[in-house]
Amino acid sequence: LSGFGEFDLIARLRTLAGKHPRVPLGIGDDAAIVGTSEEGRWLVAADMLLEGRHFDVASATARQIGRKALAVNLSDIAAMAGRPAAAFVTVAHRREYGILFAEELHAGIQELASEFNVAIAGGDTNVWDGPVVVSVTVIGEITGRGAVTRSGAREGDSIFVTGRLGGSLVTGRHLAFTPRVDEALKLHERYELHAMIDISDGLLADLNHICEESKVGAALSADAIPMHASVLSQDVTSAENADQQTSALAHALTDGEDFELAFCIGEEDAERLREATPAREPPFFVGRIVAGAGVEVLDAAGKPLLFQQAGWVHRW
Amino acid sequence: LSGFGEFDLIARLRTLAGKHPRVPLGIGDDAAIVGTSEEGRWLVAADMLLEGRHFDVASATARQIGRKALAVNLSDIAAMAGRPAAAFVTVAHRREYGILFAEELHAGIQELASEFNVAIAGGDTNVWDGPVVVSVTVIGEITGRGAVTRSGAREGDSIFVTGRLGGSLVTGRHLAFTPRVDEALKLHERYELHAMIDISDGLLADLNHICEESKVGAALSADAIPMHASVLSQDVTSAENADQQTSALAHALTDGEDFELAFCIGEEDAERLREATPAREPPFFVGRIVAGAGVEVLDAAGKPLLFQQAGWVHRW
Repeated sequence: LSGFGEFDLIARLRTLAGKHPRVPLGIGDDAAIVGTSEEGRWLVAADMLLEGRHFDVASATARQIGRKALAVNLSDIAAMAGRPAAAFVTVAHRREYGILFAEELHAGIQELASEFNVAIAGGDTNVWDGPVVVSVTVIGEITGRGAVTRSGAREGDSIFVTGRLGGSLVTGRHLAFTPRVDEALKLHERYELHAMIDISDGLLADLNHICEESKVGAALSADAIPMHASVLSQDVTSAENADQQTSALAHALTDGEDFELAFCIGEEDAERLREATPAREPPFFVGRIVAGAGVEVLDAAGKPLLFQQAGWVHRW
Repeated sequence: LSGFGEFDLIARLRTLAGKHPRVPLGIGDDAAIVGTSEEGRWLVAADMLLEGRHFDVASATARQIGRKALAVNLSDIAAMAGRPAAAFVTVAHRREYGILFAEELHAGIQELASEFNVAIAGGDTNVWDGPVVVSVTVIGEITGRGAVTRSGAREGDSIFVTGRLGGSLVTGRHLAFTPRVDEALKLHERYELHAMIDISDGLLADLNHICEESKVGAALSADAIPMHASVLSQDVTSAENADQQTSALAHALTDGEDFELAFCIGEEDAERLREATPAREPPFFVGRIVAGAGVEVLDAAGKPLLFQQAGWVHRW
């Protein structure tokens, strides 16, 4: 069973699931699209958080856990430039944590839901002696401009990200991030977004999904990657690497759980966006879509830098 | 924390969730209704199955577990007289069970999905060392006749059930039942269904939900309750009760996991339905909606019988 990861299983399921007239976009993007043009189309995203794997009660409050369970799904709807409408929450509560923990967890979900005008419309609440499990499904509206998928990037597109990257897990930002719903809707209104994804597994891994789905490559400028302050500090880079700058860059590109958005737009839009954006403020230009496949990171001299395989690949 | 059950928590969450313009029907029915009349409305149901609680790998195959995880949700959509369209599946696989177990579980989901023309449109697949958890969210279409809720039962309505009740857990039927999607759609086409629910917690408990939401009572005829053959056998009734007939009736009314539908229709429709239904075949007439509150079971002499509190109330 070694060497078999979740990504492989998901790929097999994708094949198994096949095509369906009611599902114009299925497994393989941030959210699915369900419905026909006559009956109305909706975005749907689903994610499960597991105690001891995605969170730990020693380092996260019940309220933060609930909040994050919804936030990761709102981030998926944001990545399609959709407007989240309703959430369905199935939970397994651990009996020994008691009712206050359970209520706090639901309060954390409700708080973020209210912030984004999302209705908690149903679900399933269980109590058991096992670990805490929170699964959230979010239904989102597609705006008049349509949904933005991973498959529309074109050679020559500029790639931007909506914030600084790296160190999210170490600094606890992964428990308190703001899903980029409003940012995505504004960008979608003003620019023609060719492709977009949320950065959950690290920019390298997630941009690679765009490349695969769009059948293109990407060239990132090492100098342009916006690094979060935390990855420049000793805390995160520690003694792993003598070359601290390279190490910080590796963190920014592969740490994951940033929950910023990476998106691709054409040259004219890119110029307008740069003109409209104050220096040192997001969105940040990070590179270009090129012919070929895969993501390369180039130093100032145009020489490719090498990074470890990025992201969360959990093996059996 | 004693005395605090899941039903109480759900009641509190229901209050917390409040009203939302996008959610004409939220927590408290078999499925929620999401959307406005302009953008299109959908049914959504979500349920989570937990290893050691809802299933056990000693008594259920991976394929049965996957099948059931989808089936309980299809049953919820059926209870609203909807047509299921797409399913979203989040799973935590137990590492030690290996990849074949995981694939069988997904095959079980896919098999039933194909049977009902439901697309597996997305989800989240995890591997961990904890127990198996399967959470499914199903999106369903509302037919031209509208959705059937729990709140429309009226005094004088006849109550029917779509099949024989009791012994589902003991006989393993809970792992292999056919969700009554087709039956509900046909009934909905031919009769005006005032209220409907699926029988997951036992007829007594579930009919009580209809009574609460419709602000009515129900009087069941003990003689009319269609008992599954298994509850009439020694296997199920065992030595619990010297009066075997009463015990069998208790099983039929409270065992739960029948996943048949209970529905309420007016007098004229009830007569048409009885005329169209061969004797000893479902749907079976079981009683009437009356003024008041709660569910009573009357013997042939009209004397109320007493039963233990029914259904799955799990306490902290």
